[in-house]
Amino acid sequence: MFRKLLTLEEAKQAIQKHFEAKPLDMEEVPLLEACNRVLAEDITAPLDIPPFNRSTVDGYAVKAEDTFGADENRPVKLKLCGTVNVGEMPKIKVENGTAVEIMTGAPIPEGADAVVMAENTERKNDEIYVYAAVTKDENIMKAGADIKRGETVAKQGQLLGAREIGAIAAVGLSKVKVYKIPRVAVLSTGAEVTEPGKTLAPGKIYDINAYSLSAAVVESGGKPVYMGVFPDDQNELEKALKRALASADIVVTSGGVSVGPKDVIPKTLNLLGKPGVIVCGIATKPGKPTTVAIIDGKPVFALPGHPTSALLIFHLLVRPIIESMAGRKTVEAATVKASASTRMFPARGRRTFIMVRLRKDKSKRLIAEPVPTGLSGAITTLARADGFIEIPENQQFIDVEEEVIVHLFKRIENLDG
Amino acid sequence: MFRKLLTLEEAKQAIQKHFEAKPLDMEEVPLLEACNRVLAEDITAPLDIPPFNRSTVDGYAVKAEDTFGADENRPVKLKLCGTVNVGEMPKIKVENGTAVEIMTGAPIPEGADAVVMAENTERKNDEIYVYAAVTKDENIMKAGADIKRGETVAKQGQLLGAREIGAIAAVGLSKVKVYKIPRVAVLSTGAEVTEPGKTLAPGKIYDINAYSLSAAVVESGGKPVYMGVFPDDQNELEKALKRALASADIVVTSGGVSVGPKDVIPKTLNLLGKPGVIVCGIATKPGKPTTVAIIDGKPVFALPGHPTSALLIFHLLVRPIIESMAGRKTVEAATVKASASTRMFPARGRRTFIMVRLRKDKSKRLIAEPVPTGLSGAITTLARADGFIEIPENQQFIDVEEEVIVHLFKRIENLDG
Repeated sequence: MFRKLLTLEEAKQAIQKHFEAKPLDMEEVPLLEACNRVLAEDITAPLDIPPFNRSTVDGYAVKAEDTFGADENRPVKLKLCGTVNVGEMPKIKVENGTAVEIMTGAPIPEGADAVVMAENTERKNDEIYVYAAVTKDENIMKAGADIKRGETVAKQGQLLGAREIGAIAAVGLSKVKVYKIPRVAVLSTGAEVTEPGKTLAPGKIYDINAYSLSAAVVESGGKPVYMGVFPDDQNELEKALKRALASADIVVTSGGVSVGPKDVIPKTLNLLGKPGVIVCGIATKPGKPTTVAIIDGKPVFALPGHPTSALLIFHLLVRPIIESMAGRKTVEAATVKASASTRMFPARGRRTFIMVRLRKDKSKRLIAEPVPTGLSGAITTLARADGFIEIPENQQFIDVEEEVIVHLFKRIENLDG
Repeated sequence: MFRKLLTLEEAKQAIQKHFEAKPLDMEEVPLLEACNRVLAEDITAPLDIPPFNRSTVDGYAVKAEDTFGADENRPVKLKLCGTVNVGEMPKIKVENGTAVEIMTGAPIPEGADAVVMAENTERKNDEIYVYAAVTKDENIMKAGADIKRGETVAKQGQLLGAREIGAIAAVGLSKVKVYKIPRVAVLSTGAEVTEPGKTLAPGKIYDINAYSLSAAVVESGGKPVYMGVFPDDQNELEKALKRALASADIVVTSGGVSVGPKDVIPKTLNLLGKPGVIVCGIATKPGKPTTVAIIDGKPVFALPGHPTSALLIFHLLVRPIIESMAGRKTVEAATVKASASTRMFPARGRRTFIMVRLRKDKSKRLIAEPVPTGLSGAITTLARADGFIEIPENQQFIDVEEEVIVHLFKRIENLDG
């Protein structure tokens, strides 16, 4: 079995060589349920918006030339010969010397080429006194002024939010084609691992990873498929992995990949399909035992059992792949600059990631403080961290007060005090 | 009917006076489905994590004192008297002069107080040669070292993500209490408004607002309840609003609140319950006709019919209320500073919001450019805007090249080029 430690970049290249992380097939969904989905087609307008010349005010549709010279002292008198309400087509025609009452949004009747605002008129029975001249097209929104027929109103690859969905509704579509959401099977391994909610036998601990990784799948735009916890037994694991591969686009496991004699995950993966294991260990700390396989076109990420390591490697390797398969732009995590609270050393020859907490000092300077990781299994290490610092393989150390870039886990809301 | 225009702040105060936007009731959900929900209870650990002293390495559990003085040249010899696997309680006891094989994560057997890493030993039949001394507690993670029994692992009000869910799983919970998601009924009004997907009769336009506002509800952490489109008919609107109030925590309508003779929304709202309409017009541009009612404890927001106005007022007034009812911290929209591309004037005596597009000039300076709003019904105005600028009532204008704060609609991904 292939056992050389790859650098993080080499691991990514190995995955890219065997697996193209492209958007999944498309599916049609109701526009009302399309928020946060990724559009899989360009949307072009099948009609002009608005579809007809509309009045933008309440007032009177007129021939502009009839109002020339009108002002407060010398109103022009026109004959009122009807009304156009919104939502109905005018059956009336505006001739010279006449006006038609019109509401905001109603279609401009034939013959009219401007609308006088109601405020600038006076009505006496069926006579309208116009106190302000209008120019041609004044207070008219022309057909197609908002969106021209054939115009692209939303583009393939756009993440649909309120504004995009509004534009698609405007052109009359109630359904859109979006990319399918990648299904990610998540399973945990380990003889000592027990599902939360069950009674804990002596010597056992509760499963963390299937839960934290399922949530991370949601946060990446995927749909988690929870498979459960399996002992380090090759037969059972083989069955579980086959089921996982059959029911998902990506499989993520945790545990079973340290360097102990019971590491059955790599062995089992190589039995399941071709090319099998393509990454077996990476030169990072944490995350060294990370194993990646491609089984008949589907990627399987076997992450370390330590919760912090598993989630970190998920962010570095798995999240970008889920995002690509969902059709999303892979978004770099937000970063902030901070001052190192202490000297920090990398592990020799390995890319080192140090979990840090952020605080502000008295002079409001942002300080990055390592979260103690002596207890490497600690979920609390991760829960207490605001983000992580990356130290390259060839760097000796980060000095105290050195400026560092912190990759944030989420938006920092309140660092004052 | 109450007809004075309130300032935006006065409108917010009027709403607060009649309606307390506090989190809804709680509900219990499976932890696997709790991502992006807001925790409604403090979670305290019912047990120590880990629940027992664990080995953090593969190796041999020993009495530390037995290894004192051991080094590469003078190994200490111990008698191997058993194995402890992960997930099982040791039945064996470590006496002076003996060692027990132990796996990473397995419980420390009685009598042992340290673990020697396998790398620092040599095994000959049932004899172990220890080539490095260990100190008391070395390579042992003590019970409770990660989380102490009774410790709070997640707090009421936290938005649950991968890290929080991992910590809750660690203490064995498979269900959590979260705040219910606010249900927001959305309906559009207008004789000319047609549901997308239906055939467009002459003189009609497609509904935008129910679609864009439903998506905005999702983006605010609420659940939209689509009610459909209703004509400006008091009877039908009364029935629709009653149904909306019965099926949701908040109601949002659009249209039917301009200053025309057919504005039936305020009239109808006052029939439905007490105190009825509490805001009838606000001194903003756009958004002037915005109407707010409280009907028997539930807020109804009647937004203007123009899509840009409706969505802007939703962001200013409705979104913070949905967030509060969802138990979320109300998050101010992200802002960026930019240079005004042109002089911009507010509407006299009204808080003015100008939609802007951002671009970078040749010297990489960020420029805020107003999106033409001459066509006030235009959905494309909004779709093309990156955010908006707020001009206070008492400011004369924003000058060209003046620094302005742009409230962003969403993260700006690529402004280069």
